[in-house]
Amino acid sequence: MTPASWTLRCSACDTAAERDRASVCGACGQPLFARYAPVPKGTPLADRWDAWRYAPFMPLEVGEVPVSLGEGLTPMIESPALAAATGVRRLWIKDESQNPTVSFKARGMSAAVTRAKAQGYPGLVVPTAGNAGAALAAYGAAAGLPVRVFAPRTTPRPILDTIEALGATLVRIEGHIGDAGKLAIAYAAESGYFNVSTLREPYRVEGMKTMGFEMAEQLGWRLPDALVYPTGGGEGTIGIWKAINELMAGGWLPEGAKQPRYVVAQAAGCAPIARAFAAHEDRATPWVDPVTYASGLRVPSPLGDRLLLRVLRETNGIADTASEEAIRDWTLRLATATGIDAAPEGGCALSVLHDAVTAGTLSADAEVVVFNTGSGASYRA
Amino acid sequence: MTPASWTLRCSACDTAAERDRASVCGACGQPLFARYAPVPKGTPLADRWDAWRYAPFMPLEVGEVPVSLGEGLTPMIESPALAAATGVRRLWIKDESQNPTVSFKARGMSAAVTRAKAQGYPGLVVPTAGNAGAALAAYGAAAGLPVRVFAPRTTPRPILDTIEALGATLVRIEGHIGDAGKLAIAYAAESGYFNVSTLREPYRVEGMKTMGFEMAEQLGWRLPDALVYPTGGGEGTIGIWKAINELMAGGWLPEGAKQPRYVVAQAAGCAPIARAFAAHEDRATPWVDPVTYASGLRVPSPLGDRLLLRVLRETNGIADTASEEAIRDWTLRLATATGIDAAPEGGCALSVLHDAVTAGTLSADAEVVVFNTGSGASYRA
Repeated sequence: MTPASWTLRCSACDTAAERDRASVCGACGQPLFARYAPVPKGTPLADRWDAWRYAPFMPLEVGEVPVSLGEGLTPMIESPALAAATGVRRLWIKDESQNPTVSFKARGMSAAVTRAKAQGYPGLVVPTAGNAGAALAAYGAAAGLPVRVFAPRTTPRPILDTIEALGATLVRIEGHIGDAGKLAIAYAAESGYFNVSTLREPYRVEGMKTMGFEMAEQLGWRLPDALVYPTGGGEGTIGIWKAINELMAGGWLPEGAKQPRYVVAQAAGCAPIARAFAAHEDRATPWVDPVTYASGLRVPSPLGDRLLLRVLRETNGIADTASEEAIRDWTLRLATATGIDAAPEGGCALSVLHDAVTAGTLSADAEVVVFNTGSGASYRA
Repeated sequence: MTPASWTLRCSACDTAAERDRASVCGACGQPLFARYAPVPKGTPLADRWDAWRYAPFMPLEVGEVPVSLGEGLTPMIESPALAAATGVRRLWIKDESQNPTVSFKARGMSAAVTRAKAQGYPGLVVPTAGNAGAALAAYGAAAGLPVRVFAPRTTPRPILDTIEALGATLVRIEGHIGDAGKLAIAYAAESGYFNVSTLREPYRVEGMKTMGFEMAEQLGWRLPDALVYPTGGGEGTIGIWKAINELMAGGWLPEGAKQPRYVVAQAAGCAPIARAFAAHEDRATPWVDPVTYASGLRVPSPLGDRLLLRVLRETNGIADTASEEAIRDWTLRLATATGIDAAPEGGCALSVLHDAVTAGTLSADAEVVVFNTGSGASYRA
């Protein structure tokens, strides 16, 4: 693998940051991004059966071996039945349940833990709405580093059990992921552990980019008209957007290619981004009393709010919500129509897609990629 | 994809069988095998990110699209820690939890359901010790065919819940998979459904072959000294052995390559193959009162008994057992040493490996591949 060389800059104010021990921007508090020279089309990809296939776009030192458990290279499954049910021309499900610990979170943790290990941190800590905690437990074990996870007591039990089965220390808390986040910050300060909280360090989103690279490659190095991402903390959405920008910078996509329309799907019981986008705000206000059984969407105050709203503005995006009943209904339809063991987040995405086509906000002629971010099994307590 | 052309012959007496509506050998009742002309080294493999990469070795008609959910191309993760703990020189875990419905069963069902669909069966039925039922539910949904699953009431609940979430009809029964098997035969006769019971049709084992192809390719087209497979019905073990024979016939492996030693790992509470092998029998007698929490190993009377014992004899193999306590202990070690969410079947395999090295039956100089056939999450009820 020939890895990329990178610098860190603020995603909002472009202030440069040191690579070592980086967290958020020291000037404005917004997330840092890794920046690379464009990777020219034709640069050889790595001959691996995992997300590190895209090593030329990834933050990896020369000679460094990533902490990997076989994340990524997930299937993209076309479903004419779901295209018909949602009213679009073509529809693919990108099935992220086929990752280690059965969710897309594996990708980000592989990248972040690789950097944490290289920087010599003594341990890893994360607040989680669910799947991120299980993923960090796995990659911490793979790296030989202790892991502490702060999770709401209401997190689905199969996910909490996985965190413990992989040897991590699990702290069940009252409250939501925002409350868990404060405890993680305090614990990191006290212990010196790396705080792997969403967008509070710059590397999880680098791992998330690989979904964008794969989507483009699986379509034959072209883009869909729209993609639907069930959005809690936002790292998946932001990662894909960053990947597509990097592919365009390197000339990997056809002349004149542009970003797809990003459809941000949230639960009606926790929709800070959809609410802020509807109000034409450039940042979100915290959602009081977040409630949804799709625990990955129970993120009332994401640090990525400004980035998400920017992605929506720049791509003529759509942000909308699904009720708990609609989430259940579309999760069942996703599972029985395709054979994918769908997570409720995937059902939420389909519901929002259906409503957008019905309302005429999205064209019935669209080709759409819908992300199923996790496994239904994780939610059947 | 350029698929292979095949015939069916009995694995025991070599009697030819019709391809249409095939079950077991009409002459002797033993499993049928698909037979192909050798696939010469250098034959292009399919450019896919799933097990159908090995289409030139697979039963697929020209122009046919397999029923696929992204099965296979699972990681092989080297673990120096587990090599040290078990006492061998090098050790890799082939992590089959990263398949649709989180087990190796997906591979066989992809192949078998592809053939069932092509033959126009109205539905699919299977008896299961657990994971096969979930896998068939997924591939039935993918093929648009109704599925009926007969499963012991004692099957772990997460697996039963997955079967139902994917829209299959689940019949919980008293007794073990042998009892479920009788009900499946009766139901198939009555309904005309395809009975996808292990080795009672010739195609599941064809899907299982892909583990052998992948293992060889992931090692750089060479073989380990030994492989350890946690063995219930035996289709994984038999499929890998068949794959290696086909690779050798086509010249894909180095001059003089021979089959690895096959280590069959069973639970002390259900070990018909280990018992028969120790007694130098060429067939197994049914195990009375099978008991183990590793439900995939709770197969008291596998139809593949003679084939398994032949594999053991021909490869100077090893068959041994692990206690429930040893299974639990090694499952925990597997998970915490690697970050893989290990199934108890994987723990059983490690325990048997450790004991074989300790006893001197397997050389401490060996390079070994250990199969983790499923996910720990499926067993945490």
